Amino acid sequence: MSERPIYFDLPDAGPTRLSAGLGSLTVVGLGPGEAHWLTPAAQHALASASDLVGYGPYLDRIPDRPDCVKHGSDNRVELDRARHALGLAARGGKVAVVSGGDPGVFAMAAAVFEALEAGEPTWLALPITVEPGITAMLAAAAKAGAPLGGDFCAISLSDNLKPWEVITARLEAALAADFVISLYNPISKARPWQLGAALELAARHRPPETPVIFARAVGRRDEALRVLAMSEAVAAAETADMATLVMIGASSTRLIERPGQRPIVYTPRSVTKSPWATSQGRT
Amino acid sequence: MSERPIYFDLPDAGPTRLSAGLGSLTVVGLGPGEAHWLTPAAQHALASASDLVGYGPYLDRIPDRPDCVKHGSDNRVELDRARHALGLAARGGKVAVVSGGDPGVFAMAAAVFEALEAGEPTWLALPITVEPGITAMLAAAAKAGAPLGGDFCAISLSDNLKPWEVITARLEAALAADFVISLYNPISKARPWQLGAALELAARHRPPETPVIFARAVGRRDEALRVLAMSEAVAAAETADMATLVMIGASSTRLIERPGQRPIVYTPRSVTKSPWATSQGRT
Repeated sequence: MSERPIYFDLPDAGPTRLSAGLGSLTVVGLGPGEAHWLTPAAQHALASASDLVGYGPYLDRIPDRPDCVKHGSDNRVELDRARHALGLAARGGKVAVVSGGDPGVFAMAAAVFEALEAGEPTWLALPITVEPGITAMLAAAAKAGAPLGGDFCAISLSDNLKPWEVITARLEAALAADFVISLYNPISKARPWQLGAALELAARHRPPETPVIFARAVGRRDEALRVLAMSEAVAAAETADMATLVMIGASSTRLIERPGQRPIVYTPRSVTKSPWATSQGRT
Repeated sequence: MSERPIYFDLPDAGPTRLSAGLGSLTVVGLGPGEAHWLTPAAQHALASASDLVGYGPYLDRIPDRPDCVKHGSDNRVELDRARHALGLAARGGKVAVVSGGDPGVFAMAAAVFEALEAGEPTWLALPITVEPGITAMLAAAAKAGAPLGGDFCAISLSDNLKPWEVITARLEAALAADFVISLYNPISKARPWQLGAALELAARHRPPETPVIFARAVGRRDEALRVLAMSEAVAAAETADMATLVMIGASSTRLIERPGQRPIVYTPRSVTKSPWATSQGRT
């Protein structure tokens, strides 16, 4: 990497010059649910693609077109899928790589750039764009109320790509600093205990009544929203699955009870006391 | 707050029962730019509202309708605006409170719930929903590449609602744990030095070549994307404004240089070394 102090400075990103024979690649965020959260820009990218590349169930959400080929794949082969998409674009395809939620948040965008960096030098001439989407954390928060009202962080619990020690150190830091914490990829058959361990750690830092949200498949017909007290969340870890977003409240996150309606979960914008008093007292 | 272990458990959020005479309130995220990032669900909420409440420039983005009243306000009176909206809904209005980006991220949703919690008891019977939107951090990341490819956090630099000591302690924690850090509300006339101080702190933890993104008005016609090395970012702090999202890379965040195109900024999904080695060595 060069050490130029200013890498680039664009008053307007402008149109990319197309090289002859090359296609293009867009990584498109579908949002977490049905089409009501698909942005017009993402819709347009899908409608103008010659090739759609992605995990099978995501491709199933997109209507078939005679002039568009769907290339479905398994969910675990992100780099293979990214290389395949780059190859299709290099051969002239107008390729859309589809991703659930937002492609930049624990999804396909970084995988595409990893494949680009390690791949064919000719791929570097491809115009590549990313279309943002509603990520699961925002959809889950909206459904629950406003739990992200204060400072927050997002951590993937998958230790396929980073050591578990890094995950726990980040959790410890976020808990001590009193962030609201969203946990992506909380649990899978191959990683059955990590969510429980993360929640046990959280329970040592947070008051027992702190709300913990289990938001499953938000925006889909089978969506389920469950809000537990921190003291009960560890025991409930095994009820989560790969479609669940888990959100651990800050020390100030609380409920507003309402007659005849479910409570609202929210984090006030203000911090009036030091969060470290709480944290230190419990560690 | 009650200490029931499970606050609620909804397999389906379902329709809310309407009380006679009451209206409803929806907090709607417009996304960060023009209409191409406005979700169909948000569009629907705006189109069916009798009253739109929000900061003037956001209301200007929504077409006028004869059966809909716009209630514009200044940007600094979130709680007054929230109370006004709740009052309108309690008198039968179908109210949409509009918010830039995502309403749950440093925007109007938490303000509405603060006003609800401290307000008229009758307001608790109102059906209140939140419609998520693309938040500035996701739009800026998409424009730059995939800088949020690893674990990340979002911190508001405004010390109107929390002590500066809390902000710096959170920054320190996030830097030490090697999160990618998005800074919202980085600078204003009343808060001219905080961004510089935050970037000085970051420069003590991150390698000097770490990319720092200044993304201004992403998605709007006057958008500007600037990527600097950490070593130069402090001096550039004064070029940011309230429409700027500042993103500080993790120690692994890097550029992919491309012939004839601007570089891509991305954070690989993998963590192969402990980030603390880097951080400790520089503190």
